[in-house]
Amino acid sequence: MNFTDKLFNTSRKNRSLLCIGLDPDPELMPKANILEFNRAIIDATHDLVCAYKPNLAFYEALGMEGFTILEKTIEYIPGDIPIIGDAKRGDIGNTAKAYAKALFSTFGFDAATINPYLGFDSVEPFISYRDKGIFTLCRTSNKGASDFQDLPCPSGSPLYEVVAQKAKQWNVYGNIGLVVGATYPEELKKVRSICPEMPLLIPGIGAQGGDLASAVNYGTDAQGEKAIIAISRQILYASKEKDFALAARNVAEKIRNQINSYLASRQRAK
Amino acid sequence: MNFTDKLFNTSRKNRSLLCIGLDPDPELMPKANILEFNRAIIDATHDLVCAYKPNLAFYEALGMEGFTILEKTIEYIPGDIPIIGDAKRGDIGNTAKAYAKALFSTFGFDAATINPYLGFDSVEPFISYRDKGIFTLCRTSNKGASDFQDLPCPSGSPLYEVVAQKAKQWNVYGNIGLVVGATYPEELKKVRSICPEMPLLIPGIGAQGGDLASAVNYGTDAQGEKAIIAISRQILYASKEKDFALAARNVAEKIRNQINSYLASRQRAK
Repeated sequence: MNFTDKLFNTSRKNRSLLCIGLDPDPELMPKANILEFNRAIIDATHDLVCAYKPNLAFYEALGMEGFTILEKTIEYIPGDIPIIGDAKRGDIGNTAKAYAKALFSTFGFDAATINPYLGFDSVEPFISYRDKGIFTLCRTSNKGASDFQDLPCPSGSPLYEVVAQKAKQWNVYGNIGLVVGATYPEELKKVRSICPEMPLLIPGIGAQGGDLASAVNYGTDAQGEKAIIAISRQILYASKEKDFALAARNVAEKIRNQINSYLASRQRAK
Repeated sequence: MNFTDKLFNTSRKNRSLLCIGLDPDPELMPKANILEFNRAIIDATHDLVCAYKPNLAFYEALGMEGFTILEKTIEYIPGDIPIIGDAKRGDIGNTAKAYAKALFSTFGFDAATINPYLGFDSVEPFISYRDKGIFTLCRTSNKGASDFQDLPCPSGSPLYEVVAQKAKQWNVYGNIGLVVGATYPEELKKVRSICPEMPLLIPGIGAQGGDLASAVNYGTDAQGEKAIIAISRQILYASKEKDFALAARNVAEKIRNQINSYLASRQRAK
């Protein structure tokens, strides 16, 4: 099944736009085996999410052991839940081909994040996996995002809007999405207006301070779908004690329900 | 020893600005065990290079086995030769910290390439490893580079020049360098004029068609140093037969000597 269908199915079944970032940080997590930690989080939340998103950095930092943990985590996630490999890769053509193979064939992710700085030939090897989802960084959630992404281009639009426009033009197989941080609601609104049809992956809620209501109102499409609201630390580290999985579930459920109540208000307002 | 000193020492000892990209591509290489292939290339060329540069994509595409091969390859490279991890990573602060740890502590690279699209807070965790070298993508060697890197910014300069200017401003620990493709000699010349003091990592010679004379003339600093000319396929796959290592040595030696003859002509012309 292709990524978009898998995402829709799970999102509708679980009535959820919430994606949990599986980013195990030994400094923040309760003392536990990392694979056991991931499995406990998945056990506790799999009926509340539309997707899971492991960020590869946290696994690479653990060395060889990290790759085993990542493989086993992917294996453990129920088969109907899409898995987004948050890798932010970008390289020239023949090398991007190797990265696409690593993410989609070797690890078996349903989708991946990529960095657009190298232009179309760095994107092409990813989108040629037509069943996979490719989320191009557009306006990221961090403070430094403005250093380059906000620079006005000759059209008068900032760079991130040019990236959105290019992504739209490149989207011949309908499998491109964009990453836009919830920390910048106006930019999110703008990107949604440029690409009304694209799935948007929206990090920045929770630890980074983004506003959930704006993420829902500006990030979803006209049907209240196609937004993937990615939260990691706020859920994973809800408790540092033995009850961490239950605490994670409680926070995840609260956020899932809050998202749905924003969607319901919006529907009523229409 | 810090990266810059290590680079200078080896570059002077081997009278070489040549960096060999250790990018094993099963489709291009002679039938051989990949680790044995890398070791044979290192045995045959270690007295001809200033650095080695494994691109992580090729190892990740091989899965778990690839990471073992990469670790053992790093281990095999003589300790005085600097190793640049070509990873092109970029992520928000706490995640970039995990990538920096992965590259510098876990794998133990002397330097790494990074992607600037996310701005300063994605760069900071890398440069805070003061002994390491950090090569920021600036003007890449591929065709698609122009999609975003050439967009004129408000100052009138294209984006890649703004990246060079920002990198200069961020270079408080003196450990930042830039990646500029040899396929765009005018852009290389421009970046060298903006950052006369920075090491430049220059891919694009050989398979990609960049011109070696321009790479040397425009890429080196006033002393004929601080250019790292990275070549991979042209050397690794000089022969698909059993003589591949000797063939690689012959090509590497020819290029090393050619670089030195361009440098000598330039010195004479002064």
